[in-house]
Amino acid sequence: MQLYSYFRSSASFRVRIALELKGLAYDYLPVHLLKNEQLQAPFADLNPTHLIPLLKDGDLTVAQSLAIVEYLDETHPEPPLLPADPAGRARVRGLALDVACEIHPLNNLRVLRYLVKTLGVDDEAKNAWYRHWVEDGLAAVEAQLAGSPATGRFCHGDTPTLADIVLVPQIFNARRMDCRLDHVPTVKRIADHCMTLDAFAKAQPSACPDAQA
Amino acid sequence: MQLYSYFRSSASFRVRIALELKGLAYDYLPVHLLKNEQLQAPFADLNPTHLIPLLKDGDLTVAQSLAIVEYLDETHPEPPLLPADPAGRARVRGLALDVACEIHPLNNLRVLRYLVKTLGVDDEAKNAWYRHWVEDGLAAVEAQLAGSPATGRFCHGDTPTLADIVLVPQIFNARRMDCRLDHVPTVKRIADHCMTLDAFAKAQPSACPDAQA
Repeated sequence: MQLYSYFRSSASFRVRIALELKGLAYDYLPVHLLKNEQLQAPFADLNPTHLIPLLKDGDLTVAQSLAIVEYLDETHPEPPLLPADPAGRARVRGLALDVACEIHPLNNLRVLRYLVKTLGVDDEAKNAWYRHWVEDGLAAVEAQLAGSPATGRFCHGDTPTLADIVLVPQIFNARRMDCRLDHVPTVKRIADHCMTLDAFAKAQPSACPDAQA
Repeated sequence: MQLYSYFRSSASFRVRIALELKGLAYDYLPVHLLKNEQLQAPFADLNPTHLIPLLKDGDLTVAQSLAIVEYLDETHPEPPLLPADPAGRARVRGLALDVACEIHPLNNLRVLRYLVKTLGVDDEAKNAWYRHWVEDGLAAVEAQLAGSPATGRFCHGDTPTLADIVLVPQIFNARRMDCRLDHVPTVKRIADHCMTLDAFAKAQPSACPDAQA
């Protein structure tokens, strides 16, 4: 398998964690977002959405990080990244989507560029925007985690799932942008626990080939 | 089952379509977003994220529209809303996420409110923002649909899937906001075909009890 990735892309980070948790070897193909390589050949020809990550598995191309993780879970079931019961699966997917749909899309590079270049937003207001969605969004995740007997050492029980895979990269972004985290102790506790696992540590931005280049 | 919904919420619209496709009866519980009912009891006590839709199935509460649709598909498998093969499932989920993660989050009510109230964006710039993400995002969906032999009368083959369930409400929003659609003929053709089905027609905003009140 080949993964098109950028070390700081949190959506790519999700897929890297999943690949490590599954113990799957892959070729790391860097796409430099700040240099707009996602808009140029050869990558742009592969993915009309110009988004990373993108997974190649033989002739098959899979886009969108959550779809990639579900694909990996269906084609390589061990260890499972979703619970076995529909209620548990729904809870894990819901938590993952609370980050993937409510926080991350507001803070990715092209949105921040639009704020600055098209709307003329200054740096201070741009950073406040970033922090607002992260801090508010994580508070909503915290409320669900802290109040539920289903929460364990990880977001759902005592093994990592899709919810942890999506949460941890968001915490990396939050820390890089100096967001408040004192209001989300359960989120912090789980993210810190995840980082004690080899799979999460090996997948982190600073461990990527393009970070070290 | 009970569905907390708002007639104009496109995330709620997705779940209404899925329930109709499955032939599942449900109680419609309106939550008026413009009156901020999502922030007040009783709804706010049920869902700490304050987001609709929310599905109640007995004692279980399921949040996030895509997680709800997957839950319904797992608990009521007929007719299936995802293909049987992992590659097809990945394609359908990827298309759904291209709308649910790349378009919709940028244009929901709370984001538009932040643009106006906190960033002082005027109406014209707000509408341009809205159209930008819709028109660009749908172009990326079009590129995938038009170029693929997997596309049929629907986004994936000749039966409706999660991809159509997410696409159609986005087209309703696009039309309401006068977005360009002439550059996405396959998207338009599929959305129009979906609306010839009873399940999609019954789920549309104008058919909801709170639209008719």
